[in-house]
Amino acid sequence: MYDLIVVGSGPGGYVAAERAGALGKKVLLIEKGNLGGVCTNRGCIPTKSLLNSAKTYKHAQEGAPFGVKTENVVFSLADAMAWKEETVTTLRSGIEFLMKSNKVETVTGEAQFIDPHHVKVGDTVYEGSYLILATGSSPFVPPIPGSKMEHVLTSDEILELKEAPSSLVVIGGGVIGIEFASFFSMIGTKVTVIEMMSEILPMMDAEFAKLMRRELKGVDFHLGCKVEEVTKDAVLYTDAKGQKQSIEASMVLMSVGRRPNTQGFESLGLDIDRKGVVVNDRLQTNVANIWAIGDVNGKSLLAHSASRMAEVAVSNIFGSKQMHMRYNAIPWAVYGNPEAAGCGITEKEAADKGIPVLSQTVQMRANGRFLAEHGKRAAGLVKVICHKDSKAILGVHLLGPYSSEMIWGASALIEAELRVQDVKEIVFPHPSVSELIKDACFALDHTL
Amino acid sequence: MYDLIVVGSGPGGYVAAERAGALGKKVLLIEKGNLGGVCTNRGCIPTKSLLNSAKTYKHAQEGAPFGVKTENVVFSLADAMAWKEETVTTLRSGIEFLMKSNKVETVTGEAQFIDPHHVKVGDTVYEGSYLILATGSSPFVPPIPGSKMEHVLTSDEILELKEAPSSLVVIGGGVIGIEFASFFSMIGTKVTVIEMMSEILPMMDAEFAKLMRRELKGVDFHLGCKVEEVTKDAVLYTDAKGQKQSIEASMVLMSVGRRPNTQGFESLGLDIDRKGVVVNDRLQTNVANIWAIGDVNGKSLLAHSASRMAEVAVSNIFGSKQMHMRYNAIPWAVYGNPEAAGCGITEKEAADKGIPVLSQTVQMRANGRFLAEHGKRAAGLVKVICHKDSKAILGVHLLGPYSSEMIWGASALIEAELRVQDVKEIVFPHPSVSELIKDACFALDHTL
Repeated sequence: MYDLIVVGSGPGGYVAAERAGALGKKVLLIEKGNLGGVCTNRGCIPTKSLLNSAKTYKHAQEGAPFGVKTENVVFSLADAMAWKEETVTTLRSGIEFLMKSNKVETVTGEAQFIDPHHVKVGDTVYEGSYLILATGSSPFVPPIPGSKMEHVLTSDEILELKEAPSSLVVIGGGVIGIEFASFFSMIGTKVTVIEMMSEILPMMDAEFAKLMRRELKGVDFHLGCKVEEVTKDAVLYTDAKGQKQSIEASMVLMSVGRRPNTQGFESLGLDIDRKGVVVNDRLQTNVANIWAIGDVNGKSLLAHSASRMAEVAVSNIFGSKQMHMRYNAIPWAVYGNPEAAGCGITEKEAADKGIPVLSQTVQMRANGRFLAEHGKRAAGLVKVICHKDSKAILGVHLLGPYSSEMIWGASALIEAELRVQDVKEIVFPHPSVSELIKDACFALDHTL
Repeated sequence: MYDLIVVGSGPGGYVAAERAGALGKKVLLIEKGNLGGVCTNRGCIPTKSLLNSAKTYKHAQEGAPFGVKTENVVFSLADAMAWKEETVTTLRSGIEFLMKSNKVETVTGEAQFIDPHHVKVGDTVYEGSYLILATGSSPFVPPIPGSKMEHVLTSDEILELKEAPSSLVVIGGGVIGIEFASFFSMIGTKVTVIEMMSEILPMMDAEFAKLMRRELKGVDFHLGCKVEEVTKDAVLYTDAKGQKQSIEASMVLMSVGRRPNTQGFESLGLDIDRKGVVVNDRLQTNVANIWAIGDVNGKSLLAHSASRMAEVAVSNIFGSKQMHMRYNAIPWAVYGNPEAAGCGITEKEAADKGIPVLSQTVQMRANGRFLAEHGKRAAGLVKVICHKDSKAILGVHLLGPYSSEMIWGASALIEAELRVQDVKEIVFPHPSVSELIKDACFALDHTL
């Protein structure tokens, strides 16, 4: 009899198991594949490893203005993949160690759900007081003719490539599509992105998304286009004007979205909708002892959202205080070249929700460190959005170097409900790109 | 008749002029050299430009594990210096533009102080209601035999080098000394640092400083040593055991400290001590209409401290509210390879002040992004210090990549008086090195 059975060991599941184990609970963690789930094995981590390799390649080629001359700069995809594998393996052992040190039992195999208190793996039935579902999501492959051909890959398979394709068409301009577009473009593949919507990266401020497209040099974008068919060497689509078009493609990446892994949940009596398992703001399902966290509940498909949901759920089950999951200060990042990150609302979201806001955008090239490292012709933006009346910070948007490592501070500002005036009193280190956040706040309000 | 005369156009002076100008005041800014002061012309900015060049050189040489092979990687100091010059020139024009757009009048020349309301430049006497002294500091050259020889440079002259020396002895292991040690070591100079104290980087946590020395590969350190004499080709010193020693040096950098520029203040009737112009916590001197900000008051010799002091002083003179200068959340950063940054107190400071604290250190190699970009043998640390009882965050210390761009968030945490529990509820982006700050908070308190 376990206090808690967790199904799925991604950043939702393993964190839930760890936190519950740290509280002294008897925890079983069931994983059918590798510990770490998509994030560690086929998502966040391997893509960041590859992007770092590609950026290293690019910087080695472009050092001349800074005084660094190189010759015969060669990219080895095999070596980059080997480094990526080592990174993934190390992190996987890290999670294994974390489970052991928190006395979490792990079992490998497919979970079969018997009822809300019983889960079978192989021939063994496990009983648990509570069940946390953290089964994640899988790439969605739309039923387009030709989409099952061998050269049409999802993010899972493309991470196992032995050779870079000469040309790649990315179907879907979300985060996954854009990161792979940036990676392959940096290593010399001709890349085209086809997106059904009128802009890429839907969570991003429109002005930033436009600049992102411009800065992804060497990537062609076709927006407002509907893919009709994939053939042996081309992708056929209808463009924004209704014209039939075709692009050559030796490889196709299908990155139109992900679907929650809810297969096998039938016996649990759960409410499930199109987005996943329905949960309340405490992450509890309609079945009192079952909780659902991470991609499978469809609330926020980000690794760190899953980890935070794990903490909220475990706190609500075993902890000393009841928590609500908050979604207003969850950052996101795109790790291509350039990087981008954001936290909080965009102006469009504010308008949609009827929230009156003020916003100011500053150019990164006004910043000393950015200039020193990128020069006055490089592009980058920082935007801060505040409530029109209270001046509370509601959104911070970044496009440029260090974005992914600066954005956590924005989460802190929004969580702490700081106002523009408060941020103006924070001392930022000079010179740093982060100073632009303060500059944007002064642009919002010049007074002292 | 000006509302305000500002003397010195560094990050203290130009920000004071800008903010007062933005409030509609009639402002005169006097500068004897180039706009931007030491920071822009001979400090923060040029060093960061050069360090970026050196890091680019290093990364180009060390890309093989990530899949990037290069040949004949050559560093051109001349090209790096030219890029640095362009950066400085661009920023200088930026400040010029800022002054114009805020209707600040600027005059070039040495300020001669007649009395608290009158300053003469050349033949012209200017009258002002208020005076802000922002004259900065200068490198201190101790009266050591040989310290005036031509190959003994300060940070001013070393930024104009045409050729890298074969060997360099850095006298003084503070931030300036360590940044230059890191730079020259990366570009192939044999570097030795001689420090009088028992550890380098006095503001840094002792454990971090030790790791920093270890990670500055190729730099030799001699701690607790007193330099006795500089000769044509060597530096003679007494080591920690009292033994006479000698190190070969084709060039010597003197970076033992800086002295406030208080020359010419005699006619103002100011209280001046060894550290500089004495000010209260509102940055006002003993003469009611004179304020002193930045290095010249000796309170905190950092560019961003000077800028913050400018805002505080201008607010106290012209603004709508009275402000006190707070020093407890001012970050610092060292931009060498590796980077380091900190904000708030160290354990030693806490002990000295009798503040009961808890602290936890986490290794960067436990982090996904760090592993992906540096591997499991690389070193890096994150330490969080909180008050033992209230659990308020009092200090954050970082050593490793992105430190300088992550640290602003720590300033926000301390300014907002967040506690460990609050930081645990902040969602950090995954994967990012910044997550380690949250990990350290969980190490301080495992409960949910």
